[in-house]
Amino acid sequence: MNKNKIKEILDSVSNGSLSADDALLRLKANAYEDLGYAKIDHQRGIRQGASEVIYGEGKTAEQIAEIAKAMLDSGESSLLITRLSSDSADFVASKIELHYFDEAQIGIAGENIKKSTLGNIVVATGGTSDIPVAEEAALTAEFYGNRVTRLYDVGVSGIHRLLDNSSLLLEAKVVVAVAGMEGALPSVIGGLVDCPVIAVPTSVGYGASFNGIAALLSMLNSCASGVTVVNIDNGFGAGYTASMINKI
Amino acid sequence: MNKNKIKEILDSVSNGSLSADDALLRLKANAYEDLGYAKIDHQRGIRQGASEVIYGEGKTAEQIAEIAKAMLDSGESSLLITRLSSDSADFVASKIELHYFDEAQIGIAGENIKKSTLGNIVVATGGTSDIPVAEEAALTAEFYGNRVTRLYDVGVSGIHRLLDNSSLLLEAKVVVAVAGMEGALPSVIGGLVDCPVIAVPTSVGYGASFNGIAALLSMLNSCASGVTVVNIDNGFGAGYTASMINKI
Amino acid sequence: MNKNKIKEILDSVSNGSLSADDALLRLKANAYEDLGYAKIDHQRGIRQGASEVIYGEGKTAEQIAEIAKAMLDSGESSLLITRLSSDSADFVASKIELHYFDEAQIGIAGENIKKSTLGNIVVATGGTSDIPVAEEAALTAEFYGNRVTRLYDVGVSGIHRLLDNSSLLLEAKVVVAVAGMEGALPSVIGGLVDCPVIAVPTSVGYGASFNGIAALLSMLNSCASGVTVVNIDNGFGAGYTASMINKI
Amino acid sequence: MNKNKIKEILDSVSNGSLSADDALLRLKANAYEDLGYAKIDHQRGIRQGASEVIYGEGKTAEQIAEIAKAMLDSGESSLLITRLSSDSADFVASKIELHYFDEAQIGIAGENIKKSTLGNIVVATGGTSDIPVAEEAALTAEFYGNRVTRLYDVGVSGIHRLLDNSSLLLEAKVVVAVAGMEGALPSVIGGLVDCPVIAVPTSVGYGASFNGIAALLSMLNSCASGVTVVNIDNGFGAGYTASMINKI
Amino acid sequence: MNKNKIKEILDSVSNGSLSADDALLRLKANAYEDLGYAKIDHQRGIRQGASEVIYGEGKTAEQIAEIAKAMLDSGESSLLITRLSSDSADFVASKIELHYFDEAQIGIAGENIKKSTLGNIVVATGGTSDIPVAEEAALTAEFYGNRVTRLYDVGVSGIHRLLDNSSLLLEAKVVVAVAGMEGALPSVIGGLVDCPVIAVPTSVGYGASFNGIAALLSMLNSCASGVTVVNIDNGFGAGYTASMINKI
Amino acid sequence: MNKNKIKEILDSVSNGSLSADDALLRLKANAYEDLGYAKIDHQRGIRQGASEVIYGEGKTAEQIAEIAKAMLDSGESSLLITRLSSDSADFVASKIELHYFDEAQIGIAGENIKKSTLGNIVVATGGTSDIPVAEEAALTAEFYGNRVTRLYDVGVSGIHRLLDNSSLLLEAKVVVAVAGMEGALPSVIGGLVDCPVIAVPTSVGYGASFNGIAALLSMLNSCASGVTVVNIDNGFGAGYTASMINKI
Amino acid sequence: MNKNKIKEILDSVSNGSLSADDALLRLKANAYEDLGYAKIDHQRGIRQGASEVIYGEGKTAEQIAEIAKAMLDSGESSLLITRLSSDSADFVASKIELHYFDEAQIGIAGENIKKSTLGNIVVATGGTSDIPVAEEAALTAEFYGNRVTRLYDVGVSGIHRLLDNSSLLLEAKVVVAVAGMEGALPSVIGGLVDCPVIAVPTSVGYGASFNGIAALLSMLNSCASGVTVVNIDNGFGAGYTASMINKI
Amino acid sequence: MNKNKIKEILDSVSNGSLSADDALLRLKANAYEDLGYAKIDHQRGIRQGASEVIYGEGKTAEQIAEIAKAMLDSGESSLLITRLSSDSADFVASKIELHYFDEAQIGIAGENIKKSTLGNIVVATGGTSDIPVAEEAALTAEFYGNRVTRLYDVGVSGIHRLLDNSSLLLEAKVVVAVAGMEGALPSVIGGLVDCPVIAVPTSVGYGASFNGIAALLSMLNSCASGVTVVNIDNGFGAGYTASMINKI
Repeated sequence: MNKNKIKEILDSVSNGSLSADDALLRLKANAYEDLGYAKIDHQRGIRQGASEVIYGEGKTAEQIAEIAKAMLDSGESSLLITRLSSDSADFVASKIELHYFDEAQIGIAGENIKKSTLGNIVVATGGTSDIPVAEEAALTAEFYGNRVTRLYDVGVSGIHRLLDNSSLLLEAKVVVAVAGMEGALPSVIGGLVDCPVIAVPTSVGYGASFNGIAALLSMLNSCASGVTVVNIDNGFGAGYTASMINKI
Repeated sequence: MNKNKIKEILDSVSNGSLSADDALLRLKANAYEDLGYAKIDHQRGIRQGASEVIYGEGKTAEQIAEIAKAMLDSGESSLLITRLSSDSADFVASKIELHYFDEAQIGIAGENIKKSTLGNIVVATGGTSDIPVAEEAALTAEFYGNRVTRLYDVGVSGIHRLLDNSSLLLEAKVVVAVAGMEGALPSVIGGLVDCPVIAVPTSVGYGASFNGIAALLSMLNSCASGVTVVNIDNGFGAGYTASMINKI
Repeated sequence: MNKNKIKEILDSVSNGSLSADDALLRLKANAYEDLGYAKIDHQRGIRQGASEVIYGEGKTAEQIAEIAKAMLDSGESSLLITRLSSDSADFVASKIELHYFDEAQIGIAGENIKKSTLGNIVVATGGTSDIPVAEEAALTAEFYGNRVTRLYDVGVSGIHRLLDNSSLLLEAKVVVAVAGMEGALPSVIGGLVDCPVIAVPTSVGYGASFNGIAALLSMLNSCASGVTVVNIDNGFGAGYTASMINKI
Repeated sequence: MNKNKIKEILDSVSNGSLSADDALLRLKANAYEDLGYAKIDHQRGIRQGASEVIYGEGKTAEQIAEIAKAMLDSGESSLLITRLSSDSADFVASKIELHYFDEAQIGIAGENIKKSTLGNIVVATGGTSDIPVAEEAALTAEFYGNRVTRLYDVGVSGIHRLLDNSSLLLEAKVVVAVAGMEGALPSVIGGLVDCPVIAVPTSVGYGASFNGIAALLSMLNSCASGVTVVNIDNGFGAGYTASMINKI
Repeated sequence: MNKNKIKEILDSVSNGSLSADDALLRLKANAYEDLGYAKIDHQRGIRQGASEVIYGEGKTAEQIAEIAKAMLDSGESSLLITRLSSDSADFVASKIELHYFDEAQIGIAGENIKKSTLGNIVVATGGTSDIPVAEEAALTAEFYGNRVTRLYDVGVSGIHRLLDNSSLLLEAKVVVAVAGMEGALPSVIGGLVDCPVIAVPTSVGYGASFNGIAALLSMLNSCASGVTVVNIDNGFGAGYTASMINKI
Repeated sequence: MNKNKIKEILDSVSNGSLSADDALLRLKANAYEDLGYAKIDHQRGIRQGASEVIYGEGKTAEQIAEIAKAMLDSGESSLLITRLSSDSADFVASKIELHYFDEAQIGIAGENIKKSTLGNIVVATGGTSDIPVAEEAALTAEFYGNRVTRLYDVGVSGIHRLLDNSSLLLEAKVVVAVAGMEGALPSVIGGLVDCPVIAVPTSVGYGASFNGIAALLSMLNSCASGVTVVNIDNGFGAGYTASMINKI
Repeated sequence: MNKNKIKEILDSVSNGSLSADDALLRLKANAYEDLGYAKIDHQRGIRQGASEVIYGEGKTAEQIAEIAKAMLDSGESSLLITRLSSDSADFVASKIELHYFDEAQIGIAGENIKKSTLGNIVVATGGTSDIPVAEEAALTAEFYGNRVTRLYDVGVSGIHRLLDNSSLLLEAKVVVAVAGMEGALPSVIGGLVDCPVIAVPTSVGYGASFNGIAALLSMLNSCASGVTVVNIDNGFGAGYTASMINKI
Repeated sequence: MNKNKIKEILDSVSNGSLSADDALLRLKANAYEDLGYAKIDHQRGIRQGASEVIYGEGKTAEQIAEIAKAMLDSGESSLLITRLSSDSADFVASKIELHYFDEAQIGIAGENIKKSTLGNIVVATGGTSDIPVAEEAALTAEFYGNRVTRLYDVGVSGIHRLLDNSSLLLEAKVVVAVAGMEGALPSVIGGLVDCPVIAVPTSVGYGASFNGIAALLSMLNSCASGVTVVNIDNGFGAGYTASMINKI
């Protein structure tokens, strides 16, 4: 149930075609749907201005397909499925319309992403290996209707690759900076731009990278202002928040 | 050197009263000022839309006063000093005009904070002990010209105190959620609002709170979307980023 | 040897049909049974009011079957096997009567669980992925003769799903709260109810969840009173303790 | 506002001497009291069957005294203040009636603890240095009206000291086991008794005890069933939960 | 080259049948043998009273066989290979005489272990899953000519299983105590006996056992005197040191 | 009560001058003495061949003095007090005869240490700063009647200082190797000698020494056989175990 | 583009055969090549005196082959590919000329390594299992034109193996010391030589080696001067830096 | 005893004025001097080309003065004392000639540092608070006769401050890069220069900087080649190694 639908109900109340009590019942009845193993939150669209997202990890392909179907049936035109393995994607695609992005492990159920010209979110990576996480962020932002510019492999050990693209960065309304290993990219970008930078540590690296801890700590201690951090490999969270900020 | 000053120079170029070369020299000469132990960045106001901030920890009172003086002399009307102990504040106040906020350990050199009606940033805390960090965030946001609403001691173990104030939260353009111990506040708030939530873990707690690690991890793993995280006790970073977002 | 059997022996002593020395011998002889690789504790039923449980992890299917058989042969009518893989379950089922619960990886050897109306234990989870651990807790509690109410997928980022079920929670004599990621569920529940809450962190999550450490720390630092914690993914321990409390 | 007071209001409604609306107002007005830096929860007595406790750490003596006074004024006859330094205690005692327990750093404001014969909670420690934490647990349980038996310095390296007192343990309805260093006490006790054991790791030790982490991990991994754990040095939490269990 | 061989050379010098210079050359030539990827230490038998051991992990089956052959060829009658997978064992057995112990992953090349009556080493475990590590310790001690008594599955949560075998423990000259999970066994044994206890933490457990860290820390913090600790799962090190002590 | 005294009682039984029941009573009555905050173990001398030691940390000077007095009164001629601050030592010395060793923070109550010629324990340190911990080990071993050779400041970065003293090492029956920082000393010594090496990590160092964790891990991973490890800074434990081994 | 090619362009400018503007364009055009997923840095040879290296981990065989081809096409005669699995090597070898070193997982594309007599870099290991990392270092150094001496299996627990080769060490201009487990090798070598020692911790070991953390910490805390450290298993970094130092 | 003195002795042997045996004795006699608590290594100058350094931490002022005096007396003209508190410096200065550098906590005993023109070592810092560690590095390098250029407060969040000084960096033979917080400076510098970069993490920062761990990990994971790392705050180690490299 999205904001428009709820407005419709409320309008019906205000113009008298629906009693307050009936409206309440209709809203309450749709608050969430209980599948036993999951309680689908149909009013999140109202509360948060965005439809529920399915986090695929730890769910069976059957559960994902069933939840997705329930959501589409309740009126969502499109929904995002993250951490969707290609095997699960095959199964889900056999049940509902699904657009699958292999590198990012993302599925879009229902209508596909549409091009948008809303603002500008730059998604940058330190290296090639960080791209899957970056794509999770970029596709999430695009799913929510934002324009995204990708700027990949501009790590700080070859600083001119970053500086040569500084005009791209300066046009951004928000930057998502994705990096593993020493995780210095958000600090350097944070010093160049005057918009918020969302830092995404990745588990790329070995040894004392400790699966992303080094990058995470580096980003939390960034000496640049305006940098905030999400969980290791959390491309979705960065893309989602970037969208929120871009839409303000 | 703020954006207006730099515009002045550029206008002089465009109207012919200043040659391009002379303009360049003037800009370059002001790029930063070298005090030996510090290189003051006079063009950050241009690049980032905000004047340099002095991070007081690890600097002597003398260094802080000297840097602050150099900045004010270069044309800043006001500047923010964080992590300023009351002892250092006394010394600095003997050299320049200073407004000191004891609980937040913040000093404002030059002109004091002015009330603003720009947007609305809500700063919330889980408990009473989190207030010093929250005040660092709130004062920083106010210093940069934002309207701030304080909502203190609304931790999740007494959830009705938070829910009773949900209207305040729903009006926010960005929320700063400050909590120590189990750090659950940003997750609950993140599920209630549709704006970005900046989570600030505090070192409040004992034993397995590990000086804020428990809260930090909790926040990084928030199941709510739209939550990003800053360093433990980093009220300044949260207030600064909140201001950036609020001004978009 | 359960409490009734030991009572029988003691009654025989008190009514003179068995000498004290013979009784002692009988008891001592049954104190534990030595299989070489395992010393089966036949008097735990007496000491702790509950029969020995077999922890399946790290034991071969053959060892599990042999231990289970020895226990059933010594007079247990039913016993619980935790962390039993489906492969091992197949083998064990070929040797003795076994009821297997796949999601929870639990096997009941001998008589199956019977419905009970004793008290009320609520087992709640933050998300869908936490259910296997929750089922381990719920089945354990049911095995020991308790009534269990399941309340799944009520995580704190959609707080109304929890609040809508607060009447269920208020009727509980003890709550088992199972959550991964940020682990905030026990804190919120702990603030709503006036009975003990046993918090179970799960290894659900990624990145800085560190396989459940984030949730574990969050729960240990809960700002709600009445919350105690068990090991990560230790559904059995939570269900067992909940049963102990429910029976007081 | 305790359960009796709220019942009074509800009785007045049921016998017609108070309108439902007036009752609601009276209840709502008393939901919590806002001191700015703290929101005092006056209905926790109703929700949780126990009055609010003041956690003294991180609060000034002035704040503690003011909160305590507000609580006593709202009708509490007595309240518990934990982590109260002796300096703060002196200040608080100058404002309100206070009974101070130095070793446990606990203050009782208002009426002092009364002897109780309700059930039996055993509080045991591994060593002499664990006693302050044990006293925090014991006094908390006594404050809430429980009978407490102290069993100190019975660590596992001299196991006969514990076994000689096993009759004391077997009479307990719940045991609080407090230990630092290797933290083995709860595991051994857990194997002897058939009631819940609440394990409290203490920060006693040095080197690889890591301020209680060793004991904490040991307790979380207890091979005995029925053991749950609270935060390092959290005597209050253990005593509070023990009281909850004892009263079931 | 063992102690006897070196004595032979030295005797030849003392009785004049070998010049000092020639003796030196012969000794030096045999100091170690360089296989390129390994430098086999042929005089360790002299320095340390025990022949070189092959640590199988991280070596190919071919390397192990080649090193073992070189050692046997240089005069060792028997040698110990630890961490030998059954696959590698098959290969090695096709090249040289090998006695393989599957559970302990140990191979004895050349002559097999002979029964000994030297002293008494007790190897005890907390549970069934700790047995592979315990067998590594027991077989190592037996390889070096010690009498070993096995006492398995006597964990502290069923303390009577341990106490019933206290006479066995009191006869020991040294005890090897092997335990995972909470690792309390060495502390309890250490309080019962008056001989050295070598504690071996195992990686048995889950969640907050952190692959043996919990047991390791528990053992390092043992409140019993006379307890020393080896690396997690280091059965060999414990058995080797126990042998050293037993032979003093 | 030491081994001789207990033998006396048993002899009296065997020669008929004391009934078995009276003997039992006498023994039982002396099992331990309960001071409330401490249970003094008077039979440890029997069980472990060594008198109880007082661990001074976390005990008040009053408690230490009272426990020491009780022990001396019960027949101990001498006892060891570790981690005794010089302030506490002053107080204790005012109550009982005390010999205080400032660098090691050790006090000997009653009769002082006597020279012994029993075996040979070498105590070695990597550097000058490790000496306090080494002295705790050395004095403990001397207290229990062992001959101790000190070999200080022979760290591995100047290997010839160690090799020049290898004859000292080769004469040892057991070596205590004390080192902070990289903690390599026990590994090098372990490769030179054929007796047990007890490794003591110290908290000497800075930065990534993490108060002794680096040295501790280094020692646990020693590639030399025959090395076992005690807690960081646990000189007492090393000295005590060395004494046990030396006396076998 | 290597230093010679850039010199050629600059010479053309200086002798007038190329205008400055054209030279700039040619240089700029070759600054880096954008493959979308990678930005190949063609001027690193100029800036850093060494051609770009391909880090194979986290890249597909296709990406590696494509990047390598682009580099060779741009004029590199030879390039280094690290962390190249044998499967990927097979694929790459089907596209371009490749020399593959299995143990080190290194591929040389284009011209193979040539023998050099430049200086002397000694690469030493503690054990046999450390050799793969050591080979990564040795081959990297040889690729960049250095003479390398290998000294394997000279761990500190058999110190004479190291001392017997001290003449080799004393001739080195820089030493790369590779060790897992307790990581003491660099400290001992550092005390013997008067040239820089680059320490490489390896993930060799088990239990408390924590995949190389023990060795890493040991090396960071080395009591020998002149020791610097690279990441766990980072043979490439050590070999590359050794080459830099050797060429000074 | 420095290299020249030892050469003198050897020349005397070669020209016959000293017998080989006498020379050996003279050398051996001077190998090290035993003060009991310290073994002073007089031949380190020969082995390592640099005189012994006194690490002041953990030594009393008396010990430092005595060691220094012994060294000067044995022929050293000058020696370096690190981690020397100003209190200890006062004491030492009362015994021997001492030049004290307060910010770096360094003392030079004997002859003071002389200006040198040997090579060029650049010491750079991220911020003002890193200067004490940087000065320890710079003074150490100067003590050993190197030319040092200081480049302070050029952290990556204001990247132009660094780039504006790139010519300074490009002239360096070795760079010491000192940074706390996110520790990104060495990575950026490493990408700009073609000489070795020694990275020094500092304990500057708060919260998740964990006293320098964040910077340390960041540096160990640097994506730039040629970067090696020393311990947190180890300015001495960096300066010493830089000197070694500069002199090659």
